[in-house]
Amino acid sequence: MLFFNIFLKSGLMKEIFKGKFITFEGPEGAGKTTQIQLAAKTIESYGVQCLLTREPGGTPLAEELRNIIKHYNGDEKISPETELLLIEAARSQHVKHKILPALAEGKCVLCDRFTDSTCAYQGGGRHMNMENIRILNEFAIAPLKINATILMKLDITEGFKRTQVRYGGKEVFDRFESQNLEFHQNVMDGFLQIAENEHDRVAVINAARSIEEIHTDIMEALYELLR
Amino acid sequence: MLFFNIFLKSGLMKEIFKGKFITFEGPEGAGKTTQIQLAAKTIESYGVQCLLTREPGGTPLAEELRNIIKHYNGDEKISPETELLLIEAARSQHVKHKILPALAEGKCVLCDRFTDSTCAYQGGGRHMNMENIRILNEFAIAPLKINATILMKLDITEGFKRTQVRYGGKEVFDRFESQNLEFHQNVMDGFLQIAENEHDRVAVINAARSIEEIHTDIMEALYELLR
Repeated sequence: MLFFNIFLKSGLMKEIFKGKFITFEGPEGAGKTTQIQLAAKTIESYGVQCLLTREPGGTPLAEELRNIIKHYNGDEKISPETELLLIEAARSQHVKHKILPALAEGKCVLCDRFTDSTCAYQGGGRHMNMENIRILNEFAIAPLKINATILMKLDITEGFKRTQVRYGGKEVFDRFESQNLEFHQNVMDGFLQIAENEHDRVAVINAARSIEEIHTDIMEALYELLR
Repeated sequence: MLFFNIFLKSGLMKEIFKGKFITFEGPEGAGKTTQIQLAAKTIESYGVQCLLTREPGGTPLAEELRNIIKHYNGDEKISPETELLLIEAARSQHVKHKILPALAEGKCVLCDRFTDSTCAYQGGGRHMNMENIRILNEFAIAPLKINATILMKLDITEGFKRTQVRYGGKEVFDRFESQNLEFHQNVMDGFLQIAENEHDRVAVINAARSIEEIHTDIMEALYELLR
């Protein structure tokens, strides 16, 4: 970590992370929440205030929509198109009322899931038209651009095991997590395809290691993507 | 009405209205609700079962979204993009779970407001990009097509007066109705532009006459558009 300490003193790291929008993507159980918190701690040590947020959700209205998306269980099933439009509605509100104002104040915004999750889950997982998803993503977030994305890569069966442990071994999954392994494999493939197409924005991080090792890799990858 | 009575006997009118999707558009106070009910009564007299529905709304989830769109009053304002995405989410659910199944059963579906209202209010009224609205409309309703649209034309100040009478003269308007006259003029212009561009689908009906006169015109216009 000598590398970081030198730049910390120079104030360069502060300039690099100020007003940047960073997203964390990957399958369930990859450890995104832990790593976002560690990254925020390190970035704040550079003197940059961080805003941690998550998708879908992030404002009271967006959280209300998140709740409908994740746990709706009325007599009617949510159609795939409706689900996608609700995700984008929540995202648009999140961007305009939380992310853009924080960036304008010079904060570094770290977001747990964003547009790539929609491509991977709705496109890769549910086989919806990827071009339609891209148009909706762009409509919902404009004029926001993502500065860097950390994709946490994990073997699917490993992620599944970790998720089951999280719920105390009981078979309690929400609508997304109760999908089968093939679905989750398609999602992971969708993520990797995005990383391949947009390697200037997305860094793939091997999430099957110790928390500290992963954190070090993430900070180095962010430095490379943002400098 | 001799014209209609002859065809009624022949069963031709039944064939014309069976499984058709008809939308009613126009400004507040134009009398859409009354005319939809009268049209349904006449169409049912031909032996075709009608489903009356409305936008935004139409299913329990869609009605929940309608409620958020029309009366949301938390601390955050709904952004125009979020409003549009919520309208389209409700619409998609409405199409998949209510309109398409009814058409498949051979019913005639009469809908109070649909995609043209979105173009007129969000595009004409709020100046959002019309091409984006068209893409979202298409995404939300596919594979549904509108067979005929009745646009009820009314002088804006007249519509405004009627709306005030409806609320007992009190200044009780919801978010849409509390907009100013210029907004409503832009909306009416938006509707008329659509009718000009798509005259094979849309008939413009002068709504400043007696209920019975308007009804007769509507039924003749529907016959011309659908036959």
